[in-house]
Order: sequence, then structure tokens, then C-alpha cells
Amino acid sequence: MRATVIRAPHDIAVEEVADPVVQAPGDAVVRVVLACVCGSDLWAYRGESPRRPGQRIGHEFLGVVEETGPGVSRLAAGDLVVAPFVWSDGTCEYCAEGLTTSCPQGGFWGSVGSDGGQGEAVRVPYADATLVRLPDGAASDERLLTALLTLSDVLGTGHHAAVGAGVRQGSTVAVVGDGAVGLCGVLAARRLGAGRIIALGRHEARTGIARKFGATDVVAERGEAAVEAVRELTGGQGAQSVIEAVGTEQSMVTAVHITRDGGAIGYVGVPHGSATGLDLEAMFDRNIALRGGVAPVRTYIPQLLPDVLDGTIDPSPVFDLTVSLAGVPGGYEAMDERTALKVLVKP
Amino acid sequence: MRATVIRAPHDIAVEEVADPVVQAPGDAVVRVVLACVCGSDLWAYRGESPRRPGQRIGHEFLGVVEETGPGVSRLAAGDLVVAPFVWSDGTCEYCAEGLTTSCPQGGFWGSVGSDGGQGEAVRVPYADATLVRLPDGAASDERLLTALLTLSDVLGTGHHAAVGAGVRQGSTVAVVGDGAVGLCGVLAARRLGAGRIIALGRHEARTGIARKFGATDVVAERGEAAVEAVRELTGGQGAQSVIEAVGTEQSMVTAVHITRDGGAIGYVGVPHGSATGLDLEAMFDRNIALRGGVAPVRTYIPQLLPDVLDGTIDPSPVFDLTVSLAGVPGGYEAMDERTALKVLVKP
Repeated sequence: MRATVIRAPHDIAVEEVADPVVQAPGDAVVRVVLACVCGSDLWAYRGESPRRPGQRIGHEFLGVVEETGPGVSRLAAGDLVVAPFVWSDGTCEYCAEGLTTSCPQGGFWGSVGSDGGQGEAVRVPYADATLVRLPDGAASDERLLTALLTLSDVLGTGHHAAVGAGVRQGSTVAVVGDGAVGLCGVLAARRLGAGRIIALGRHEARTGIARKFGATDVVAERGEAAVEAVRELTGGQGAQSVIEAVGTEQSMVTAVHITRDGGAIGYVGVPHGSATGLDLEAMFDRNIALRGGVAPVRTYIPQLLPDVLDGTIDPSPVFDLTVSLAGVPGGYEAMDERTALKVLVKP
Repeated sequence: MRATVIRAPHDIAVEEVADPVVQAPGDAVVRVVLACVCGSDLWAYRGESPRRPGQRIGHEFLGVVEETGPGVSRLAAGDLVVAPFVWSDGTCEYCAEGLTTSCPQGGFWGSVGSDGGQGEAVRVPYADATLVRLPDGAASDERLLTALLTLSDVLGTGHHAAVGAGVRQGSTVAVVGDGAVGLCGVLAARRLGAGRIIALGRHEARTGIARKFGATDVVAERGEAAVEAVRELTGGQGAQSVIEAVGTEQSMVTAVHITRDGGAIGYVGVPHGSATGLDLEAMFDRNIALRGGVAPVRTYIPQLLPDVLDGTIDPSPVFDLTVSLAGVPGGYEAMDERTALKVLVKP
């Protein structure tokens, strides 16, 4: 089959690789129908997250089950399924608690030895526990299918940030980061009942989606000016709940200083310098909590799925560019240059 | 009157100062019956927290109301009261939420222009909101009175750490820091129903108190060996709830690495390097939350007071040295040299 590999920083290619086959009894092979490029893939693309030359890449996909091992009992060939970005065994203590990302048997698509999502097919370990079945009818509704793909990562990750930030009915929320995760954070905050959602961003197409997703205010300023603008919107206090969906020092500095005393930062931006943005003295004096991390999206899929299926939330607008598998390298370029928000891949 | 001042690092003195008088309608003057020296006073003593030469010091006291301003309605001369380490107005939005440490009118005993607790008397702003009345009978029970003094800071701060760490019925808790706050964290964790409490410390008098307070295990190792020991005690996973009651880089490093995936660090050690101990990449991968800060002990006093009064919890063993006011400088020395755990002051 053909699959995307990362040969070196800024060198993404689509190559012929071995076809995936069932290796363990719990495996399934899934033919990818939709995949996409994640903002976090750019850390590898830019060389900031090390990858071995030729390693697969892509961790978001949905598709159709093609083959199952003898230990798979809840899925059959032909099922339409979505995969969370981490596989997990479904039986360990962490899985039982819903922290599927800490499953000792778990792993990340595209890690060495595994298939990536940006390819024609994927071997899925622990398929019964990892994959979530979708209604067959969804396959024929392209808009819905695209929305369902976000369950693989960005919608669940935005939800994790909102949960970490303690969003409740009536909360005032601020969102740092106008990528797909930040935008899904807006959507998730609205879904959890936030009364006011302040989106930070200056890219009009993105802030337009933020407003569509439920943002009540947009702050186009950056740095200290952004902090002042959010404080001005919140009676000088800042937002109770802040979503940090970038991971850089500057984004974390902003997040800390726009959080209201006693509030919380839900952080889901993969840390790339953000530790040094944590002003712990300020957080201590003001009782600001930090909660988040890699999102256990497998746990969230059943919670979010009904709202996506019935249209209560529609995250599909985060995709603004569609490519074939051959177009994936160009998709990375477009996201790296911020000419695309999020790239949909149709293998 | 006589009161303790800090003239310079390592130079604590008891000097004649102006008698406190009612200045604002809401003020009360409290004659100090018991005060004490806090581990956090040592940051000033060591010159790591700047102080103006001659600034007062001491932020924990209980005493008897001597005089009240015309705006004080809930207290009268002769009342036995305990003061939280921060005064607050009781009417602002933060006070209403219980975050009294963020009260815009609030302040810290010993800050420039205010009296400190380590003196004969203290002018208390917003006395109705700040002070909590104690039963008159407590005055004649020295053990109880000493226990009640911990409501001023260390018991409420230990409780704040336990709450921040998410301690619940049956939780496994680890406590970094064998000072009075760490020990009160043990007591608070037991009170909240912790099933297992691992105290880190090698000073036998202190670990003895930890066991008396409810610690089920003591880890005497430090650094990486301490991390390994806690992991060994917890099936390799670490503790769900970790109390960080020191504030240094090393204590925070230990706290992060003994926290179970999905768990929380309740941090109350005043940050003195602890920010650099936050391994945010590890926290991200393992979904470890950080929650705490300066404890709003005024809010906790009414919650904790009944249990202290009826003897359900007895924090009084944290005091192991008693001095007169003249003995306060020696008390600082003893705590700095760790020959005393916590010094009680009887002015």
C-alpha cells in the first residue's frame, strides 16, 4: 500500500510500504476512508520532535474494517469505525478509569513499528477496545463523516482542555490558540454551557469559525496587549477557565496572565517551551490550577459522538483544504505556512 | 509595645514599637496570646524573600480582642479569636467565593505598615470578616489553644494542599516536606479519608509525628531513590494525590515523579525554585494536574474548627519549642538549623 512517511524535517513523502496484516489475535486492519494532518504533526515536520528517517506519520483516521483477528469479537469486516490517536487495551487499570493514554499496552499511530493514519490502511492493535463503531449511514454523508473524523483527536482534545479548565454552565472561558484544537475548545466550551467565550486570534477565517463555534468575543491583540484586552472584557479579573492549545512559552505566559484568581488553565498544547511560560509565583499567589495533558480521546468518543451525529455540534469547518494521499506533502506545507487550518486527506 | 522585626537577613530582633490603635471603623486591636514562627518566615530570615529593614514579621496568632472600632459588630472586647494569615474584607467577589487571599482589600501580617503576629498586639483590619471567634473555654486549655493556633496557617495550608491534590475517601497520598505544613497535610489527608499516606522524611522526630497524624508509610530516601521507593509502595504507579509542601526545585521534581498518571499535585510550598522542577513534558504525557497556592485559610477555619475543638484532629504536636517574645530570635535560629520543627511564641 501507499503511506505517508517523514524522511527528514520538511521532507514528507508518500511511499510504497508493506501492506498491514493481522499480527496478533486482537488486531484489525482498517482501510482508511478519511485521515488528516494535525497541528502537532508540524512539530515533527519542523524537526522539533525527533523522528527516525522514514517513520510513518499521521494519527487521525476513520475507515472501514477490512480484516479482524480471531480475538476480535465486537467488530467485523465492513464496519465503519473511528480510531482515537492512541490505541489502548481496554482492560488495564488506567483504561478502566478512562485514562486510556496511560495504558501500558497503548501506543501512538506512526510510532516506530506501527502504521500511521496518513496511509491507505492501518493495523490496529486491541481493535475491540480501540476502535469505536460509527453508524453505517454516516459513510454516505460527507459533511458528517468529516465531522466524525475530529473525534480521532481535535474534538476530544478540545474537550479535554475545556474539562481541564473546569468549564461549567455559565463559565467565562478564554481560548489561546486558533488552530483546530483551540477552535474545538471553543466548541467544547459552548457544549459544556460556557456563558462567555473569548477567542484569541487575528486570522479572520479562523476567528470566523470561532464565532460560528460559539465565541462571544474575539481578541486580536497579542502578548501583553492581549492580556489587557481579556482583562478589560472581564472586569479586570481574567477568565475562570483558560484553554491553552499551543504549547509555546508565549502562549503559556498569556494563559497564566488571563486566568482569573482561583481559575484553571486546561492545557493541551504539546509542550514546546511552555514550561518556561508558567509563572509559578503568580500562579501560587492567585491560586491558578494547571490541568490537562495528552487527551484520552478514546474515553470521550462515546460522550461526544451523539452530539456530532445529531448535529448539536459540527466541528467539520476546521477542515479547509482537502488533498489526496499524493497531496499530503503539500498539505503539510500549507499548514506550516498557515495557509491551511487543517488538511483533510482522502487516500 | 514590643514586637519582632527583621532588621536584615539572619537578624531578628524584638523592639519597642508603637502601640496598635483602631484606625478605621472596622479595625480591632487584638492582644496576642499565642503566636509562632512559620517555615515560610525562614525565606525572609535567609534573605530569599526581600524585606525592608525593620519590617515586622510573623503572620500566625490568636489572642483576645482588646478594642474594636465603631464598625465592628460581631466581636467585642474580651473575645478569644484566631486570625488567618491574610486579612480580607469579607464582602468582595473573591471573599464571597472563599478565595479570601485574592481580596483586593486583603493583606499579609507583617507587610509594610501592618503589625506582625510575633508581637504583643496586632491591629486587625476588617476584623468582623477576618477574625474567627473561639469558645472562651479554650483559653484555659493550653493543649487545645496550641492546636487552635494552627488554624492561623499550617493546618489550613495543609488542608489546602490535600484539597488541591484531590484527596478523597480511599486515596493514596504522598507528602513531600516534613515541616509543619507537610505534617498538617498528612493530618488533613487522613481527615479527608485517605486510605494510604506516604510521608517522605528522614528526621525521626518528624516522621514520628507523621505516623501519629496518620501516615501509613515513611520513605526516608531522597531524590531518585525516594521516587523509586514511593513507586515500589504503589505498584509502580505513584500516588494519586501528592502534597508539595516545600517549594524548591528538588521537592517539585520529586512531587512530579511520584504522582500517578492522572493524579494531582497540591502545592503549597512557597515557590523558591520549584517552577524549574515542573517537568511539563512528563506532566503532559501523564495528565498530572497542579493545583494549590496560597491557602485561603479564613475560609477553611469554620470547616476545620469543629474537628480541632472536639479532638478529632490534634495538630498541636507540630510545636516542639516554646519561647517568650524575647526568645523569638533564638526560635528562628532553631528552625533555620532544623533543631526545632515549629516554635510557639508566648508574648
